[in-house]
Formats: sequence, C-alpha cells, structure tokens
Amino acid sequence: MSRILLATRNAKKLEELSRILVPLLPEIVVLGLDDVAAYDEPAESEPTFEGNALLKSRAAVRATGLPALGDDSGLCVDALNGMPGVLSARWSGSDKDDAENNRLLLAQLRDVPDERRGAHFTCAVAFCLPTGEEQALSAEMPGTVIREQRGTGGFGYDVVFAPRGETRTAAELSIAEKDAISHRGKALRAVAPLVAAALGRGR
Amino acid sequence: MSRILLATRNAKKLEELSRILVPLLPEIVVLGLDDVAAYDEPAESEPTFEGNALLKSRAAVRATGLPALGDDSGLCVDALNGMPGVLSARWSGSDKDDAENNRLLLAQLRDVPDERRGAHFTCAVAFCLPTGEEQALSAEMPGTVIREQRGTGGFGYDVVFAPRGETRTAAELSIAEKDAISHRGKALRAVAPLVAAALGRGR
Repeated sequence: MSRILLATRNAKKLEELSRILVPLLPEIVVLGLDDVAAYDEPAESEPTFEGNALLKSRAAVRATGLPALGDDSGLCVDALNGMPGVLSARWSGSDKDDAENNRLLLAQLRDVPDERRGAHFTCAVAFCLPTGEEQALSAEMPGTVIREQRGTGGFGYDVVFAPRGETRTAAELSIAEKDAISHRGKALRAVAPLVAAALGRGR
Repeated sequence: MSRILLATRNAKKLEELSRILVPLLPEIVVLGLDDVAAYDEPAESEPTFEGNALLKSRAAVRATGLPALGDDSGLCVDALNGMPGVLSARWSGSDKDDAENNRLLLAQLRDVPDERRGAHFTCAVAFCLPTGEEQALSAEMPGTVIREQRGTGGFGYDVVFAPRGETRTAAELSIAEKDAISHRGKALRAVAPLVAAALGRGR
C-alpha cells in the first residue's frame, strides 16, 4: 500500500487530520511524525498559511522521501484585520497556550460590538511528492467570536468561535458535526482526491 | 483669548500634545480635561483612528461647549496586518499597560524576519466646534519594530520602534527630535492652522 506522511507534531491536530483523512483514503497508509525518524522541522515563518503548509510538507518530503501533507491553520478575526492568522498558535507570546491565547483574544475584543465580531478559521494544506510535484489549497469556516469560552471539544480557538448559523461554539459540536463544516474538513476533502490520484499513479 | 480643549485623559499624551500645540497657537489658551467639569468620556469603540478622534472631540464639545481637539493614535505593524492599530493601548488586554503591550508585541513578532518588521505610528486628530463644524486628519511616522526595548523617553510603543533612517528608538530621541518627525507632531502642525483660522474667526 502507498503511504503518506502527515507532517504535524500537534497531537490534537494530528488526531483531527487523521480521523478526517483516513476514511477518505482507504487504500493509503497515513503516517504521523512519530512513525518516521526525527528531523529538523522548519519554523512557521511564512506570512501566509499556504506558505507555512508548503514549508512543512517540503521539509517532510526532503527528510523522509515520503509523500507528505503539511498544514497550517488559524483564526482570522475581522476586527483584528485578519489576525491572529498565521500567529494563532503563539498569539499570547507562548507557543500553543490555548488558554492564554483565548483569554487575550477575548480581552482585545472586549469593546468590539457584536456586529463587528466576524471571523473565520482557515486551513491550508500542501501536498508534496518526492518527484517535486506540489499542490496547496485552503478552506475556511466562517463565524463569530463570542464573548466567553464555551465547550470542551476541539482545541485552539474552538471555545470562543461560533460557526455561522450556530449558537454553539465549535467546541460544543460533535466531532461529526465539526468535521462536516470545519476548515480542516473542507480542505482535506478537497486534497484527498489529489492524493488518491497521485499515489494511485505511483502504485 | 479663545480657548480650546484637548480631550485626552492620558497624562503623557496630553503633555506631548500641549508642548507641540501651544507654541503653534500663541493666541489661544489650551485646556486639558482637568480644567473643565468632569463628563462621561466615550469608549474608543470605532474601527478607525479618525472615528475615535471624532468621538472624543464631539463628546468634549457637547459636554463643555468649548471647541475641542480629540486624538487617537497607535502603532500599525505590517506583519500584524496593521494591528495593534486602534487597539494599541489595550493590546495585552489590560488598558494602557505599556510594559505588557511591548512584551506581547515583541513575543508575537519573535519569528518575523528583519525585512518584514515594518510599521508606522498613526495619529488622527479631530477638531470640532460648537457650531457643528468638524475636521479630521491623520499623519504617520514610518519605521521598524526592533527586537528589544530601548530608551527611557516617550511612552507606549516608543521603546520598540525605530523611526525610518534612525538606529535609535523613538524613546531614545530628544523631545525636539521626536516632535519634528512624529505622527503627533505632523498631525498637530497640520491641524493648527485650521484651529487658528476657526478661532480667529470667532473672536
């Protein structure tokens, strides 16, 4: 069977990516970074989600020789001109401190009225092959930043984000409900046929 | 003599505004909010600097019957899509905590390379009269966010900002040097003739 590497160290993200992708690619073995020899992962230094997804995917291919999916995602808040954006994971300064990031975001938006609290999650996915072929795409989940943290599912900013048409936060949705509308679900469903086609060709 | 009210409670900002404006308006008495009866000041809830400057200036005119200058200013960082912007004073969540705001900004920009650390200060000034006449304008000081805090002058983000062409931060410039190039100096020099003309008419 063909193999593909998901180039992320974030355990919660890996879990979400895997649960969406594995059923879409029944003929392909999906590996995580723990399944391959350690290598130096690049800093997420690009100004765009797709740029960072490509960085991660390219580094994974270079280090392992496997086809690889890299991703980058974040929350883009209208009242912050699209930030935290690519800085979502380290918005409060400390890397991946969800509690601090959410506390800071709500404090920054304290005086922003309801009609200006629009936001969207973006997920960019890059798919790179040892042949040098590269594809990148992204998808969004629109919604609103609410005024408190609610819910125990998900991770990151899910607890402060109500998807469009929902009164619940992304952290209050079931896994199936979230994956059906999420930025990550949409991006992976878009990239899966490209992966299947490329790896099918290679078999 | 005609009088004009500077509608700010920020002591450091009032000092800077006064020292620039007073010599430009020798015929006019410049008052601060401590010189007039207290009134409810509006929250800075607008999405633009000029919008907030107008809010403050209008509220001051309404409460006191005096011609008033309102201002709003902030630091717009390219790598943050122009934020902290109108949220500059409360970027870290606590109002006007310069040390926390600077610490957070430097942490957010930790991985942003030198060539993408461009930024500018903006100062918007609104001048409103009891007659209902209103004017608003803004000015900028371009430069770069450095990687540490330096200097003891100024306030706000001056300690992390090197004006274009300077190796020193805005907090390391003399008062005269800063006022000559600053967003606030430029905006006040632009509004002063409008004030002089309007109040001259009224005498």
